[in-house]
Amino acid sequence: MREAFHEQLDSIFVDLAAICGRVKDAVHLATEALLTGNSETAERVISADVEIDLARERIEDQAFSLLSLQQPVAGDLRTVVAALRMVTELERMGDLSVHVAKIARLRVPNIAVPDEVQPTVSRMAEVAEHMVEQLNAIITDRDVAAAIELGRDDEVMDGLRRTSFTELLSDDWSYGVEAAVDVALLGRYYERIADHAVSVANRVVFVVTGENPSALSAS
Amino acid sequence: MREAFHEQLDSIFVDLAAICGRVKDAVHLATEALLTGNSETAERVISADVEIDLARERIEDQAFSLLSLQQPVAGDLRTVVAALRMVTELERMGDLSVHVAKIARLRVPNIAVPDEVQPTVSRMAEVAEHMVEQLNAIITDRDVAAAIELGRDDEVMDGLRRTSFTELLSDDWSYGVEAAVDVALLGRYYERIADHAVSVANRVVFVVTGENPSALSAS
Repeated sequence: MREAFHEQLDSIFVDLAAICGRVKDAVHLATEALLTGNSETAERVISADVEIDLARERIEDQAFSLLSLQQPVAGDLRTVVAALRMVTELERMGDLSVHVAKIARLRVPNIAVPDEVQPTVSRMAEVAEHMVEQLNAIITDRDVAAAIELGRDDEVMDGLRRTSFTELLSDDWSYGVEAAVDVALLGRYYERIADHAVSVANRVVFVVTGENPSALSAS
Repeated sequence: MREAFHEQLDSIFVDLAAICGRVKDAVHLATEALLTGNSETAERVISADVEIDLARERIEDQAFSLLSLQQPVAGDLRTVVAALRMVTELERMGDLSVHVAKIARLRVPNIAVPDEVQPTVSRMAEVAEHMVEQLNAIITDRDVAAAIELGRDDEVMDGLRRTSFTELLSDDWSYGVEAAVDVALLGRYYERIADHAVSVANRVVFVVTGENPSALSAS
């Protein structure tokens, strides 16, 4: 019984990593659509989101059946509930990628991000994508050290977001209100993807150690 | 045993409604700080958020102890898991109110929202606050009809957000990039508060009926 439980739990974590892989693709393609003004690529991200939603539903069904049939307690119970929360956040990261793709699509044939801030926005997108890629490995390997490390990437993201505000609020800004609003919202979406990645990584730490990362990194 | 279970479950829902009350206060005060440029009121919202976080932790502990000790199955299990998700979303609504308060504080002694868009932003804030107030009653009374009704308020919110974009992207906009970015982000925060309110209300529908609202309102 217990062995069956852990096999099913492992299978849920494999599926969580697979969703994470889909989210990574979504972030990558949404950014490509954004920086090239390609509406087809944007559409691909938007239409692929339903696959992430379906994968979420499958994981939720698995987790509920595990809770109902195996009645886990203590750490096992917390792990299943953590998995339910992780899948919610991963789905949300997919939604945020769709928001990026929709801004890209809205401005076609133009490119939403003016040349001057492309380096900063590209960098934010790269950091977000890298974090999601790391997260995939963190979920697969239950890698606590890498999970704690992810908080540093998040600090880089926060710094980039501040840089983007400095750029778009400077007196030299010549691209008007629309572009500024787009860049501010894009920054918000990438920042939220990063926040969710950290939150999911923290849940992995909790699953493995029974402690929250703040307790572990306080030393 | 079963009676004890339902008593504890009821107690969790009472606590969820209490958090919802705190969130309503946070939305109200953050908006007041925003529209009057009052930094003390903004600080109150920011510092009160820790109370919401603590209340969330208490509900999570109660829910886990209920799952561990009572081992609910089927509908009872789904209700406890729904409560865990509801509290996460309510806490997030508190965070979003803090974001509003922080924009207010950042612009003191000025007011972040220019006169011209104050009607639209005030209306967004009112709709958000009203939705959180309704949500409190929906949680307390397990009111399915009111929960389904909440989707209409959300449509009003979406319309207001579009209006605010029309205003800040019009050729007449004379308040510069900073105010436009503030208004766009504020719109995003109020919209997300509304989205979470709908999501929490949908979980109440699911708890009561075992169906998602889309299945009930499709007729």
